[in-house]
Amino acid sequence: MIRAGVDIGGTKIKLGLVKEEDGTLMAKGKIPFVHEGYKVVFGQIAAELNRLLEETGHSIEEVGSMGLAVPGSIDREQGRVIHAHNLDFHDVPAVVEIKRHFPRIPVYLGNDANAAALGELCCGAFRGYRTAVLLTIGTGVGGGIICEGKMFNGGQDHGVELGHMMLKYGGLRCSCGNYGCVEAYCTATWLMEEGRKLIDDGKKSLVGERAQGNPQKVDGKMVVDAARDKDPYAMEIMETFVDNLSAAITSISALMDPEIIAIGGGISGAGDILFQPLREKVKEKSFFKTEYNIVPAHLGNDAGIIGAAYLYNNGGLNRKGG
Amino acid sequence: MIRAGVDIGGTKIKLGLVKEEDGTLMAKGKIPFVHEGYKVVFGQIAAELNRLLEETGHSIEEVGSMGLAVPGSIDREQGRVIHAHNLDFHDVPAVVEIKRHFPRIPVYLGNDANAAALGELCCGAFRGYRTAVLLTIGTGVGGGIICEGKMFNGGQDHGVELGHMMLKYGGLRCSCGNYGCVEAYCTATWLMEEGRKLIDDGKKSLVGERAQGNPQKVDGKMVVDAARDKDPYAMEIMETFVDNLSAAITSISALMDPEIIAIGGGISGAGDILFQPLREKVKEKSFFKTEYNIVPAHLGNDAGIIGAAYLYNNGGLNRKGG
Repeated sequence: MIRAGVDIGGTKIKLGLVKEEDGTLMAKGKIPFVHEGYKVVFGQIAAELNRLLEETGHSIEEVGSMGLAVPGSIDREQGRVIHAHNLDFHDVPAVVEIKRHFPRIPVYLGNDANAAALGELCCGAFRGYRTAVLLTIGTGVGGGIICEGKMFNGGQDHGVELGHMMLKYGGLRCSCGNYGCVEAYCTATWLMEEGRKLIDDGKKSLVGERAQGNPQKVDGKMVVDAARDKDPYAMEIMETFVDNLSAAITSISALMDPEIIAIGGGISGAGDILFQPLREKVKEKSFFKTEYNIVPAHLGNDAGIIGAAYLYNNGGLNRKGG
Repeated sequence: MIRAGVDIGGTKIKLGLVKEEDGTLMAKGKIPFVHEGYKVVFGQIAAELNRLLEETGHSIEEVGSMGLAVPGSIDREQGRVIHAHNLDFHDVPAVVEIKRHFPRIPVYLGNDANAAALGELCCGAFRGYRTAVLLTIGTGVGGGIICEGKMFNGGQDHGVELGHMMLKYGGLRCSCGNYGCVEAYCTATWLMEEGRKLIDDGKKSLVGERAQGNPQKVDGKMVVDAARDKDPYAMEIMETFVDNLSAAITSISALMDPEIIAIGGGISGAGDILFQPLREKVKEKSFFKTEYNIVPAHLGNDAGIIGAAYLYNNGGLNRKGG
């Protein structure tokens, strides 16, 4: 059976056809997100999906379901997006709207971070586990939780906000207005800012050399790469980053006691320089003194599409979809 | 139907007969916990239970099940206590042992903090809710989680350790060895220590007056009472306490998005001086900007007994009990 997945982001929409049996992405497409109202958006999604079907020689009748993943809060039962600020979607009847174009397909709506965790459960890093946490690290920190084998959407269906757990209450200001959230410390943005400070402070580091002395050219990856190349300043930044991240993971584990934690986002490609010390530091801090896996997420940039395609299959949680 | 509940603590064992229909505690007893090995302990529990039955004119045939709540990690499927340090129980076959005395009764084993949350679900503050968090504040911070209408025992069955989530990573040393855990800030112990400092620092406060200048006489309640009586130093301590606790609750909520949070332990009797500013501060910090209830736990000191009595009824989680 083919399942369609649509990952709607604030700058682009990614969609694809997924083979239900093993999560193979049979075809994928990408269109820009245009801020011209949701009717235009869903019309473009429909057109792109039809194009993908034509391109691959499949008909709409072969598509068992469609999933829409959005970066925001949703009302699953009503199939509505409550708020997705990056999309300017507020109380948008997403399911009804896409069904104008595909009236016969069951449609499921989900939060994008949760969908990514579901994707990892169905055909990625979480396969075979019952309790798992996906932490997606980019400019911010997102994530999704798998609890008792199902996607957990928060007790009031708001999703989960792992980036806004407290790490150092009273510390750095976070985008949410609080001080000391995980998101204020455990992001590529933090790495970038610390790298820029090296240049501002006149430190002679590989970061400065590679950015040709221009702080604006520094990004998080540049700091990670310099640390891998044994630049002492970059190594120090990386050590603090890993220490903070290990404390955040310890905190999540105290509450969830997960079997496995996956790190997604660009940083997940950092390899041993991240994962080896991270595992050690988490083990050191861990209250339960047990082992659990800390691994890179498997699905990468396609996690949203694949997770959306599997929204139909969430252990009964999406009972009323479509 | 009568259900028996046994709450095994490091200094005393509390047990009772609970009316299944409404959670009424029909009779309760208390015996000291003796460190003479688990066989002696379970023999004494059996004797006390038989005494309660006789006293109330009931027979063992009327008891539908028995629940044992212990302060430690358990293997529910095997009915074994893995570690309960306060009891000196390590790999103890609790269910087999109590069934020597009551061979025909199904016996269920649970963690005491989880059992208390289950008690609140069955006949206390959480009745009618599906996602709820109990935070028990005493010398330490414990707690239990109700997720999707069931007691959540952690993904690896270790229980949950809400007190060891990070609040101010790098801050005060916690009993677990980490720095900055919730338990280092949000306890009656913290209140007591801050109260004692007032005396040590020569501050003229109601706390010092009531403790007759003896720091050893200060406890957490004395600080709360002095704050209620408008002592400015005690009010300042209380304000910091509430601020830290509100940040801890915000953190839990970012992850769980619960419908309701109950505060148990001695501090839950503090009334408006605690709950009114706590609700305001949590609302201020809350990422989701939604309402949820923050209330005192209902079951008080009997939570363990009542929760243990309901262990038979955890939405299928305790499938193999007894």
